[in-house]
Amino acid sequence: MAGKKVAAGIDIGGTNSVFGLVDREGNILVGGSVKTAQYPVAEKFTEVIFNEVMKALGSAGREYELAGFGIGAPMGNINRGTIEYPAGLPWKGITPLADFFRKHTSLPVIVTNDANAAAVGEMIYGAARGMKDFVVLTLGTGLGSGFVVNGRLVYGNDGFAGELGHTTIKPGYSERECGCGKTGCMETYVSATGLKRTLLKVMANSLQPSKLRKYSFEELDAKVIYEAALEGDPLAIKAFEYTGMMLGIKLADVVAHTSPEAIFLFGGLANAKEFIFEPVRKYMEENLLSIYRGKVKILPSGLEEKNAAVLGASSLVWSELENK
Amino acid sequence: MAGKKVAAGIDIGGTNSVFGLVDREGNILVGGSVKTAQYPVAEKFTEVIFNEVMKALGSAGREYELAGFGIGAPMGNINRGTIEYPAGLPWKGITPLADFFRKHTSLPVIVTNDANAAAVGEMIYGAARGMKDFVVLTLGTGLGSGFVVNGRLVYGNDGFAGELGHTTIKPGYSERECGCGKTGCMETYVSATGLKRTLLKVMANSLQPSKLRKYSFEELDAKVIYEAALEGDPLAIKAFEYTGMMLGIKLADVVAHTSPEAIFLFGGLANAKEFIFEPVRKYMEENLLSIYRGKVKILPSGLEEKNAAVLGASSLVWSELENK
Repeated sequence: MAGKKVAAGIDIGGTNSVFGLVDREGNILVGGSVKTAQYPVAEKFTEVIFNEVMKALGSAGREYELAGFGIGAPMGNINRGTIEYPAGLPWKGITPLADFFRKHTSLPVIVTNDANAAAVGEMIYGAARGMKDFVVLTLGTGLGSGFVVNGRLVYGNDGFAGELGHTTIKPGYSERECGCGKTGCMETYVSATGLKRTLLKVMANSLQPSKLRKYSFEELDAKVIYEAALEGDPLAIKAFEYTGMMLGIKLADVVAHTSPEAIFLFGGLANAKEFIFEPVRKYMEENLLSIYRGKVKILPSGLEEKNAAVLGASSLVWSELENK
Repeated sequence: MAGKKVAAGIDIGGTNSVFGLVDREGNILVGGSVKTAQYPVAEKFTEVIFNEVMKALGSAGREYELAGFGIGAPMGNINRGTIEYPAGLPWKGITPLADFFRKHTSLPVIVTNDANAAAVGEMIYGAARGMKDFVVLTLGTGLGSGFVVNGRLVYGNDGFAGELGHTTIKPGYSERECGCGKTGCMETYVSATGLKRTLLKVMANSLQPSKLRKYSFEELDAKVIYEAALEGDPLAIKAFEYTGMMLGIKLADVVAHTSPEAIFLFGGLANAKEFIFEPVRKYMEENLLSIYRGKVKILPSGLEEKNAAVLGASSLVWSELENK
């Protein structure tokens, strides 16, 4: 007798890796986590999390049948099933993660980057249901992005397509250093860290008083700046506006390249609502060729933040099986 | 008895519209042209060119059967079968060209922009055969582009995707006016006209002698500048280098977005060979995130310039039938 199918969604992070068993309707039946940082050897990590998933499957009940493993990870490459040169994970160089899983299972194993997983999650369970062309941006510590064209993720020839965070808005005109080794990458502006960097510049140029002048760079975060903006703090508002302007300008390129129906903003920065959405819309529209104007929606994600990573990762399995 | 299938390829231009009947192997059996500018009413133009195509079909012989009409046109929209606000055509506003054709035929009619048609032509008959992810740039009077992802053209939600010419390389930093109403569009740098504009700036800044100082702006063209470069003219070489730099910088974004296997350069400017290819490669690589470096080929088109427009337009028909 065939059981009710569930997919294992695994979100690999630098400190913790979280997993869940998710049915086709998006219910997380059972979940758990593994401390990534404790496993400097990726093969050992794979063995441990695989066993945890199987234990969770056993506890879920005998009526469930596992359909596959969907894994979101920084620098995950879908073509090769690898994680390549990630910043912030304990594994250096190229880790053949899918191969490691396949030593334990013959089920499908799909590895991609976390923002691609979020895009598939948005398509299957979120606000992109029914859309065939859209973009998801994850605005956290960094800037992640996933592009969907014709109902499928854009992987490209190399498997690393859909990247926005390390494109440059003002080539040669920015000295803002990026962790990738380049300067002026979008991520250095449009991310929680980018917002903090911008706030410092705004604060340096302005003489206006602000309670944010009491915070060190390390104490600042997107939430503190958002709360200040809510109270009318002019520096906080200006920092959001500049951040939204940089994103809006660049999104005009994304629209020209892929003509999406909507662009979804997800994660920390997106919680600042109109402080970020309004300048994004304004500067995107201003920079669009007229034929695209007024056609592209800038929307919040339809996924709950706490479940999105696991849902997104698990959704890769259904997406894979249904596109076979 | 079913005949041997041929597709009608129609390339609509401001002065002339050229057509040909093309078999699946890319042989142009018979062709002709209609003077676009003589037909201020698009419905009349449609009737005339439709009749010309049918006359050509008759003259080709009774063994041929028409499979459909593929049409490349400036601002052609594949989703709606329209031409929308084209510069340089006699028809203003939105022309429902596919609908006009359907009054005469029940065969498939596909309308898209000329660069998209060139991309499909490259995939079916040119140097992109066997590739699933690539980009074609047409470097003529303007800058056209077509993106192929997963073996299919990227149309986007609106049908106008794959646009590079009206994205901006230095938002807010260029005063170069574009015909579209914006300033600083890529087309104002990377096109035959853009090359001329750049040459003027180079000439204004430099005191070096050059035979190009004898030419008026109107007398200059890409060929004259190329010939000067071949003779070692420093201003001509510098103008190509700057043009290639602007394109290379922007292509780093295209690579991040779509991770193509190759980017093909087609048309007038591409004939300048290494004067343009070399700086494009150099500045693209310099601006790429390290994971993409050394992976993307910059290649000349594999299509002969004289036949490319008709071949590309006709190939839309096979592409359409084979993706059904």
